[in-house]
Amino acid sequence: MRLAVLGAGAVGSSVAELAADYGHTVTAYADSQSAAVDPDGVDVAGAIDRKATDGIVGDADPGEAVAGDYDVLVEATPTTLGDAQPGFGHVEAALERDRHVVLANKGPVAERYADVRQLERASEGSVLFEATVGGAMPVLSTIADFDPEHIDAVRGVLNGTANFILSRMSAEGLGYEHVLAEAQDLGVAEADPTFDVDGTDAALKGVIVANVLADDGEEYTLDDADVEGIEDIEGSALELAAEDGRTVRLIAEVADGEVRVGPRLVPENAPLAPTGTRNIVQLETEHAGRLNISGRGAGGPETASAVLADVGRLPEL
Amino acid sequence: MRLAVLGAGAVGSSVAELAADYGHTVTAYADSQSAAVDPDGVDVAGAIDRKATDGIVGDADPGEAVAGDYDVLVEATPTTLGDAQPGFGHVEAALERDRHVVLANKGPVAERYADVRQLERASEGSVLFEATVGGAMPVLSTIADFDPEHIDAVRGVLNGTANFILSRMSAEGLGYEHVLAEAQDLGVAEADPTFDVDGTDAALKGVIVANVLADDGEEYTLDDADVEGIEDIEGSALELAAEDGRTVRLIAEVADGEVRVGPRLVPENAPLAPTGTRNIVQLETEHAGRLNISGRGAGGPETASAVLADVGRLPEL
Repeated sequence: MRLAVLGAGAVGSSVAELAADYGHTVTAYADSQSAAVDPDGVDVAGAIDRKATDGIVGDADPGEAVAGDYDVLVEATPTTLGDAQPGFGHVEAALERDRHVVLANKGPVAERYADVRQLERASEGSVLFEATVGGAMPVLSTIADFDPEHIDAVRGVLNGTANFILSRMSAEGLGYEHVLAEAQDLGVAEADPTFDVDGTDAALKGVIVANVLADDGEEYTLDDADVEGIEDIEGSALELAAEDGRTVRLIAEVADGEVRVGPRLVPENAPLAPTGTRNIVQLETEHAGRLNISGRGAGGPETASAVLADVGRLPEL
Repeated sequence: MRLAVLGAGAVGSSVAELAADYGHTVTAYADSQSAAVDPDGVDVAGAIDRKATDGIVGDADPGEAVAGDYDVLVEATPTTLGDAQPGFGHVEAALERDRHVVLANKGPVAERYADVRQLERASEGSVLFEATVGGAMPVLSTIADFDPEHIDAVRGVLNGTANFILSRMSAEGLGYEHVLAEAQDLGVAEADPTFDVDGTDAALKGVIVANVLADDGEEYTLDDADVEGIEDIEGSALELAAEDGRTVRLIAEVADGEVRVGPRLVPENAPLAPTGTRNIVQLETEHAGRLNISGRGAGGPETASAVLADVGRLPEL
């Protein structure tokens, strides 16, 4: 397939770098400022180099990437809330041109799911977004395989930063601010970790799952989620939990048409208490009991693997 | 899709019962003695009833099921070794008629993988076999999504009976023969548990994974696997392991072109030490680290879910 990769951060650059390995050609690669566009295949290594040294991906305008030659538009620009722009506009432009779309950007499918599906219905192209929930873990494709109507509930640890902080606090008896600073030093937490620690990121993933599970017509956005973060958790609460063989994790749950995210008591050593940045998802299926899927929920190559798996599922146009 | 379901045991009957729920029609349902065949849809409940009361599925000959009207032949007859008959013959007949095949029977893809692939290449139909490895767990589809060439190793607990026995021996300090008898009473172990406890069943699953991971041309059969069972494990070995925070599980591993199955020391509470009949598979991926998938590795409705997921992946003929 010919890919237009929008977004030149960790995920976008990994998709561009790994695409050839999966038999695809990158015909456009862009960030918000500039683009490299070549119908015969962009020099990806050169573009990544140029971005690192000059801050410029290429000589073209980002708009040329969206309007160029490709089969699949890969949307890997940063997640935005509300109107989900500019990501949503990229999705719209590609579908209106009857191209496929693969999303790593959560915004369009968390905040404007019905709009995305409506555009998809009017298009020859399809929209896939495995990478938006749980990075490398095959969550949405497994839900699709079981058929959403045979999935009763989905819950899990969907934010690696919050999980790292909670598992360090619990294991070392350290306070929240201390561990957050450590996580930032290690590059596990971003300079502005708000969306990770206040539950927004996990909630967006829960909302996407809820949209996939919902019957036609229902739509969820972040506003529909009941969200609590981990900023106010005291070390003493974790100590109390540990005395009882339990610990605290930030759990996202989608069940009975509701999305809830918050700190929950879970047994130590239980599947729902992974350590470090690992994520886990539990699917409660109607006919096959509980399935656990765990793995790396973030990271450039990890998330790119999910993007490229989606690309591999798309039919030729 | 119109399904011909061959095999009327736990898996075949579950596939037939659940098919309508997934939007499919059962046009034939057969065991080795008789068949119910109806191009407009077999009365599945009636056929299951008849089999329970009279030992007869229907008035037709099993051959009429294979030769009848269907899009997908579901092969759920018992796994056989060597020539993998009669399952292989059913696969052959369906592919030669340009029909799809979905296997729950491990024989054809463990013992005659190259033959199956050759028949598939000459056919309009495709062959899928998710249900043969890990029951409800999406193992083969996840390998396909990541692309087999980007999977470095696969290991896991792939036999629930052996795992039940080892985890009971370990937790209760009981001997092998005692726990085996208990497992037979509970219906967890079959009357003849040979293939579960001697490692053959886990090895067949490992061989299937090895075939999927292999480059074109290589073929694995049970003879290529290095297999050791759990029959000779002493309770004292488990006690020694426990003193060290470890336990023993029957682990199948596919790596470096080899299939190995045997009892291995693993840390207690580690993902590779599930309790009871649960299965787990770890995929070591090139770009996305380690993925764990755990769930029910056997059972009628569980395995049927995997069969029906495969059916859902097949293109219309």
